Amino acid sequence: MTSSTHSHPFEYEARPVRVVFGPGRRAEVGNEVDRLGLSKVMLIADGNTPGARTLVDVLGDRLTSCWDEVAQHVPLELAERAGKRAAADGVDGLVSLGGGSATGLAKAIALDTGLPIVAVPTTYAGSELTPVFGTTSAHHKRTGVDERVRPRVVIYDPELTVGLPPALTGPSAFNALAHCLAALWSPDGDPLTSALAADAVRIVTTSLPELASDPADLEARSGLQYAAFLAGTALGRTGTGLQHRICHLLGGKLNLPHAETHAVILPHVVALNAPAGPEWVARLEPFLGSDPALGLWELARRSGLSTSLSRLGATEEDAHEVAGQVAGSPNPVPVEAAAVEALLGRSLDDLPPSVGQ
Amino acid sequence: MTSSTHSHPFEYEARPVRVVFGPGRRAEVGNEVDRLGLSKVMLIADGNTPGARTLVDVLGDRLTSCWDEVAQHVPLELAERAGKRAAADGVDGLVSLGGGSATGLAKAIALDTGLPIVAVPTTYAGSELTPVFGTTSAHHKRTGVDERVRPRVVIYDPELTVGLPPALTGPSAFNALAHCLAALWSPDGDPLTSALAADAVRIVTTSLPELASDPADLEARSGLQYAAFLAGTALGRTGTGLQHRICHLLGGKLNLPHAETHAVILPHVVALNAPAGPEWVARLEPFLGSDPALGLWELARRSGLSTSLSRLGATEEDAHEVAGQVAGSPNPVPVEAAAVEALLGRSLDDLPPSVGQ
Repeated sequence: MTSSTHSHPFEYEARPVRVVFGPGRRAEVGNEVDRLGLSKVMLIADGNTPGARTLVDVLGDRLTSCWDEVAQHVPLELAERAGKRAAADGVDGLVSLGGGSATGLAKAIALDTGLPIVAVPTTYAGSELTPVFGTTSAHHKRTGVDERVRPRVVIYDPELTVGLPPALTGPSAFNALAHCLAALWSPDGDPLTSALAADAVRIVTTSLPELASDPADLEARSGLQYAAFLAGTALGRTGTGLQHRICHLLGGKLNLPHAETHAVILPHVVALNAPAGPEWVARLEPFLGSDPALGLWELARRSGLSTSLSRLGATEEDAHEVAGQVAGSPNPVPVEAAAVEALLGRSLDDLPPSVGQ
Repeated sequence: MTSSTHSHPFEYEARPVRVVFGPGRRAEVGNEVDRLGLSKVMLIADGNTPGARTLVDVLGDRLTSCWDEVAQHVPLELAERAGKRAAADGVDGLVSLGGGSATGLAKAIALDTGLPIVAVPTTYAGSELTPVFGTTSAHHKRTGVDERVRPRVVIYDPELTVGLPPALTGPSAFNALAHCLAALWSPDGDPLTSALAADAVRIVTTSLPELASDPADLEARSGLQYAAFLAGTALGRTGTGLQHRICHLLGGKLNLPHAETHAVILPHVVALNAPAGPEWVARLEPFLGSDPALGLWELARRSGLSTSLSRLGATEEDAHEVAGQVAGSPNPVPVEAAAVEALLGRSLDDLPPSVGQ
């Protein structure tokens, strides 16, 4: 924020989420469940998720139910089955351990039941801080906003992310970056959220390359998870935009991996919006260079991420269809189908983003 | 925050205060009262406070009661009288307009009655965002923390601060700086609060000198009020420490002006704590130079503030007594009476702060 924008009006409402951050703090999940007055919780986690054993041990008698089936984009049928089990077992709360799929399943259950959630994220998705939910059925992704699905407590234990494979680390970090960029250019933004979003971009641009040389570096892992926390905070305040709309449509239609799709699409959406945002472009210049779209594209390639939408399985026909669906979406630059098709075309051809696309 | 501290554990709980910020937005006070479902409010404001007329007009029929007597440090007797009036008039909410005295009186009433507060600050005190209250009786200041006194809505209208005299502007800004420094070195700190506190210091160091040449500069006024918002947020999260303890004791005992006392004391307390805080010292160096205590002292003098405790009316005897009372207070550097007496001695003699004091 430059001094020339201090008088820009905004509203700001902090949300009452409790965050517990630090290496090893997954062991405090029992205390957090107790603080909420819960005694019969369901643990939602793929059994192979790091930390699952610790959570089972620490929760002890508080653990009434275990659910170990999770899936990308939260199939509605899966959410309904898990919700029935929670009801049958008479649980009074949900503990989710994992990435966006585990958190998302807990949210889908909470939407119907109002059960409080303690989320223990193991990726950098950020959705654990938001009231946004999404379920998928018949190749259509439905998303919505409801305060009932926002976790009451989030425990960030960076040790749980140390083993996250490079193929997930980079895309998950780009998912967080996408939230930050959306917050920076959102008309619902405020200077606090912008300050935190910009700080998250700074941290990702230093931590992600550090992990390329040493994926187990706990400091860099902590940095990325802190950035994910900031990104999630930003996401919870400003919501998503064109970037997420495109990724959700592609994800729902083709079952593309969510975070990888973000990484591929983000530089191109940034190229579309950069001409309309000289303030955030200047703010990010120390970390991303004078062309933030190109800076992100190069960060992706340097971090070993794919930048090709074709490689994820999308075709020109998909791009054409999605472009038509997102035309007119709220965005700093008016969204025309042709511009989105061109943007997606460059990502299909694995070309760098172009401002004049 | 340097990358070497990302793995430092912390907890973070956002508080549900609604903030409305922007020039002219005092006119939205009626909407905000409606949003809270209130219909019979008491306006607490010195009648000469800028904006009082607008608030009376905008509140219209919602205004059941007006209270125009406010005083520094909130005398308990005054709070009791105002509370009785609120009860007699059957009000369902409080609207405060003014500096810390008006906000503080509203809080003192809310403490007993639970009445919700809409605060419209006209200085940079920051207390409008906190659950901290304080009343004074028989030369003793009692402070405490209760969520019932935290305003539900804060309307920041920088236009209301344009006429704030230089004699109040500088001290009020230093009051905000004191909150930021306390947040940066507090053991209850977290990286978000530190980021926002450091940003507030940055903004004050640029905006305050701008106002020295043009006190009506709305951009600089907006910057200071935004910094006050950040400082109040930090204060709400980490509480106060030695600095505030000293100022409250001096204020309660001698009825010294609150903000001026902060401005005089702050550089000396910073000198005491700087050796124990290389991280925040480094973080503030771009704005305050390598010696943050001296940087603040020079900022005060450059901005026309008094740096002399004697000039405020305190004596060596007062310093001796207060030093004895604060010995052992929680602080990054253990607090010994002799060190505090030396520190206060330098401020009595109008000497610059000294790290080796």
